[in-house]
Amino acid sequence: MSNGLSEQARAAAAAVDGERLWSRLMAMAAIGARADGGVCRQALTREDRDARAVLTGWARARGLRVSVDAAANLFVTRPGARDLPPLLIGSHMDSQPAGGRFDGIYGVLAAFEVLEALEDAGLGTGRPIEMVAWTNEEGGRFPCGCTGSMSWSGEAPLENFLDVVGADGVVLRDALAETLAASPDIERRGLGGGAHAYIEAHIEQGPVLEREGLAIAAVTSIQGFRMSHVTVTGTPGHAGTTPMAARRDAVQGALRAIAALNELMADPSDTVRFTVGCIDVEPNSPNTIPARARFSIDFRHPEEAVLEARYARIEAAVRAAAAPCDADLEHESSMSPGVFPAPVVAAIEAAARDLGLPAMRLPSGAFHDALFIARACPAGMLFIPCKAGLSHHPDEYATPQDCEAGARVLAATAMQLAEATLS
Amino acid sequence: MSNGLSEQARAAAAAVDGERLWSRLMAMAAIGARADGGVCRQALTREDRDARAVLTGWARARGLRVSVDAAANLFVTRPGARDLPPLLIGSHMDSQPAGGRFDGIYGVLAAFEVLEALEDAGLGTGRPIEMVAWTNEEGGRFPCGCTGSMSWSGEAPLENFLDVVGADGVVLRDALAETLAASPDIERRGLGGGAHAYIEAHIEQGPVLEREGLAIAAVTSIQGFRMSHVTVTGTPGHAGTTPMAARRDAVQGALRAIAALNELMADPSDTVRFTVGCIDVEPNSPNTIPARARFSIDFRHPEEAVLEARYARIEAAVRAAAAPCDADLEHESSMSPGVFPAPVVAAIEAAARDLGLPAMRLPSGAFHDALFIARACPAGMLFIPCKAGLSHHPDEYATPQDCEAGARVLAATAMQLAEATLS
Repeated sequence: MSNGLSEQARAAAAAVDGERLWSRLMAMAAIGARADGGVCRQALTREDRDARAVLTGWARARGLRVSVDAAANLFVTRPGARDLPPLLIGSHMDSQPAGGRFDGIYGVLAAFEVLEALEDAGLGTGRPIEMVAWTNEEGGRFPCGCTGSMSWSGEAPLENFLDVVGADGVVLRDALAETLAASPDIERRGLGGGAHAYIEAHIEQGPVLEREGLAIAAVTSIQGFRMSHVTVTGTPGHAGTTPMAARRDAVQGALRAIAALNELMADPSDTVRFTVGCIDVEPNSPNTIPARARFSIDFRHPEEAVLEARYARIEAAVRAAAAPCDADLEHESSMSPGVFPAPVVAAIEAAARDLGLPAMRLPSGAFHDALFIARACPAGMLFIPCKAGLSHHPDEYATPQDCEAGARVLAATAMQLAEATLS
Repeated sequence: MSNGLSEQARAAAAAVDGERLWSRLMAMAAIGARADGGVCRQALTREDRDARAVLTGWARARGLRVSVDAAANLFVTRPGARDLPPLLIGSHMDSQPAGGRFDGIYGVLAAFEVLEALEDAGLGTGRPIEMVAWTNEEGGRFPCGCTGSMSWSGEAPLENFLDVVGADGVVLRDALAETLAASPDIERRGLGGGAHAYIEAHIEQGPVLEREGLAIAAVTSIQGFRMSHVTVTGTPGHAGTTPMAARRDAVQGALRAIAALNELMADPSDTVRFTVGCIDVEPNSPNTIPARARFSIDFRHPEEAVLEARYARIEAAVRAAAAPCDADLEHESSMSPGVFPAPVVAAIEAAARDLGLPAMRLPSGAFHDALFIARACPAGMLFIPCKAGLSHHPDEYATPQDCEAGARVLAATAMQLAEATLS
């Protein structure tokens, strides 16, 4: 597969129209546009339904078939010559409440651009190629991110999510029904059914590609994580009267605990990600020695063995450091890393190189729908640079050139994989 | 003065009735009693007015004169043989919203017990002795603590406080008028006018006396303080994607800054009090690298020179430690230490020793009305032990024995000072 791109793959990449892609991106950014330049297009809202309707219109204008499953995952199909499992390309259309114009929607529109490019160039494929937009990846409204990809891949049944209550009080079941009812003319399809492979294009959401001056990353894996909270308990007292030696100050205990975790997480290769994003102090009064300090731990790594080994040492480290305060660890959630199959990673990297685009391999620090789709079929991702690593932020930005380059690599990779045997 | 207690001073101490004092303490604890055993009797509330009415009733039953000034400071006067400035003894009756049964009210009722003991023993004094209850020491409702003592001593005019809005939306001016109107039969007196001396008895609000197994502390001084907030500013980012080396994590910056302050505040004598009571993180989301962390500094010491020298080094220390984050210091308030005159401290200590009560000298970590009264006349304080150093808390406790011992020392000291020349 990496012995150079096929003629068809080169032709597909060449047919990608960067201006069209950019104008579609900007048209989508207008749906749920915020005054600060960002986007609020949360899952299964009116804005999400509007975006789906616009995309459906574009697809039908090109004579492409649109279908939707019970999780409201939206598909646009370009048929192949043979009746084979499709090659899926896509991402998600929903945004964070204070999100940007590229996260998710870029991968959907790059995939749609691939279909249009193939149409424009009259390039046929053996397998069908389908664009997909997964429902509720962000989890910003309904706190069960990747609802669509998890239920499509069988990671969890859709029923598990139906009773989830959104931040606005709406139940997911009702929002889903409302979204499906809003487009009764769209063909319904079964949920799941597998695929030949899945490729997702996305902005990096980190600073590496920009810093390295590269156009493309072939994503090797999605980090696993462990998330927990530590509660440090001390003894409240009067800040003016209690001698320092007699104190059990929960803030000072938490401070020592975090310093111990910094040491435990030290990694010369800078692969570990360790973040204390929350600290909550009680009573949080300037002249009272803190009785409790609760802080969050977000620990990620691409290797399960590293996650396992370091996480196992957290509780003892925290307890020893927090003394004479007490410290308790509440484990909240964990996920094993997802490693993308080597042939898929190689295909993306080779496509970029063959198109003259400087590329590297990179693990993904964030989760993506591809993590779950990878449980059901060979999957992979490509990243394009984003400005200053900013994401989930109104200032999130990717250049038109980088957006076009990513779509070219997606087109070439899709053409290669659509004809390849992956097993 | 310290050449032994006079006969009259011994007689006054002997006449103190510990059971009566305890029953009056418990009667006052019932006014504003909380279900958790604590007291909510905030300044100028209905509960405060009820407590004033009860005390007024007790005083009148003993034939003692009750008067009140424009700040609603309440006085109970036992006349002296000569027309001289009075010796003042007292404290405050208001509590924190989740306060205890002893803070403030103990000093008022111990003073009232002294008046009753002198009545019982038929002991006359040259000067009048007056019990005083200062208005709004706590500042829990109206955030201008020590309103009564500051305006009495001339530290600040009463007008400065009249427009202060309470936590419940009531303006101090109106609450004051309501309190004064509630007892139109009480004689009005001018605000201020000075005194021969002032002695305040109080629970320690710290653990030292209990730990040392001592009954009495002669308070040498009230610590000065510096209060400020530090804001550490970093760069927000995705906790999963941003390499550690590329981060400007505001929580980590604040942690380094606090560690640097711990070093700066190190004091082998354990006299410095340094507390970080508040930390507020933005956006305080587990998977976002913190953009801002703001923490409070409460720094106290009995010596102005130490306060000055160490405080001057805080900003540079915090900035250096927080780098590459930015750090800014907002100064909020400062107060110079108050040192009680040596003869007053010596009189309290000698009275305790002569009564066979083990005593020590101790600086006060907390503020008290005596800090401001000391600007107008010689003042001093005595502390009695409290359980586990707890104060401003429903579990605040002092034993009946310790309460009685404190009142005996107050009685003996008052008798000594009422006849002494202090200048």
